[in-house]
Amino acid sequence: MHPLQQPDETLEELGVADYRVLQKAKGFRFSIDAVLLAHFAAAAVHKRTRVIDLGTGTGVIPLLLCGHTSVDSVIGLEIQPEIADMAGRSVALNSLEDRIRIITGDLRSPGKDFHSSSCDVITCNPPYMPPNRGMASPEHSMAVARHEITCTLDDVSRFAEVMLKDRGKLFMIHRADRIVDIASKLRSRHLEPKRLRFVYPKPGKPANLILVEAMKKGQPHCSVDPPLYVYDQNGNYTEEINAIYNKE
Amino acid sequence: MHPLQQPDETLEELGVADYRVLQKAKGFRFSIDAVLLAHFAAAAVHKRTRVIDLGTGTGVIPLLLCGHTSVDSVIGLEIQPEIADMAGRSVALNSLEDRIRIITGDLRSPGKDFHSSSCDVITCNPPYMPPNRGMASPEHSMAVARHEITCTLDDVSRFAEVMLKDRGKLFMIHRADRIVDIASKLRSRHLEPKRLRFVYPKPGKPANLILVEAMKKGQPHCSVDPPLYVYDQNGNYTEEINAIYNKE
Repeated sequence: MHPLQQPDETLEELGVADYRVLQKAKGFRFSIDAVLLAHFAAAAVHKRTRVIDLGTGTGVIPLLLCGHTSVDSVIGLEIQPEIADMAGRSVALNSLEDRIRIITGDLRSPGKDFHSSSCDVITCNPPYMPPNRGMASPEHSMAVARHEITCTLDDVSRFAEVMLKDRGKLFMIHRADRIVDIASKLRSRHLEPKRLRFVYPKPGKPANLILVEAMKKGQPHCSVDPPLYVYDQNGNYTEEINAIYNKE
Repeated sequence: MHPLQQPDETLEELGVADYRVLQKAKGFRFSIDAVLLAHFAAAAVHKRTRVIDLGTGTGVIPLLLCGHTSVDSVIGLEIQPEIADMAGRSVALNSLEDRIRIITGDLRSPGKDFHSSSCDVITCNPPYMPPNRGMASPEHSMAVARHEITCTLDDVSRFAEVMLKDRGKLFMIHRADRIVDIASKLRSRHLEPKRLRFVYPKPGKPANLILVEAMKKGQPHCSVDPPLYVYDQNGNYTEEINAIYNKE
């Protein structure tokens, strides 16, 4: 076991730059959503881009962005101290302390580490379920990650509106069936959606996820990218998904 | 030449129920958009459904709905008298006067033929270009059809909000890059988008069109249908497009 690893954690390869990530053996683990979001956002991230990842969880998005781009300033904000601690140890065991900083805190009252209009890119893989929909998971860390308890669409939008520079970008992955909520809320916060990509579990099924790129004070005009299919008709990952995983 | 046909008009098969439609030889002709919209809306149209087609143009959508369903009450509203006259003659030459009524009028002041909360389904293939974008066509009838001169997204939404029954449905086809305008505007008019389908010209390209189904006073939750591709990689119509054309 790695000296930074705890008994209830696993240590896995991320498939990029030999990076590894700690996850809870049971409960809190990152999903394909985070991988898709990091890939979707990476094109907007360069060496000097100041990035904040909201609700960073395992820290997988900061790690992937470091593996995939030359970015040297990523903050991962996580409300749950135990999860933030795990993310911080993942940063340390990859020797990425000079590029990624994990901060324990609440995006609803971000505190002194955050300055308005200072950020170029915000990424967020937020909880998907409205707080009163579905069963809240009995394990609290899972409930926080899955439900809009500590981080609603409005919380994320308000944070992004304040912290982004003009023309700075918010990248988010969310449930496709929330498209109208997302479009309306972001526009009301002066975060104009500029690019959408719908994710389909396989051909012939409705979309389950949406990738969104929004620009603070952007002009109205939104391109809709080709669909992203996760599985093909035979239940195998599509070539594109394999490429995203291998690349990252 | 058919006795109801005028010299500057063509008469074409619609491919359903032996119906035919008059179009201007130069200028005003229906496009694939109308065919896709009629197909998208048809599942919600039954014998007693009261339908209004806004900006009916050639009357192609009322004709297709009559061919494709048992509907017996469709109004086609058209602002341009010459175009409305042509649509009326298409209705007559198909002997559909008891099912389709073409009314010349302006949806912004619809007049005595229209009653609030009386309608089950509204279809609209509106002009796509904002009034100050792109060159207005020198021929006025084309300019009206292509640009938001007589029929903006707001005009359509306001009409639908007034005329639809509660839980009545608006079906629209529009430019995909207007998705945020559409979602925001419809919701603000209590027309909740319930189903979207993006139309892609071919695989690998961004969507150019969006099909929208919205319900008056519907609950927020929007499904995103599988993508509709018009052409395949070889430049041929896809099987689905062929099926839509043959079926209708």
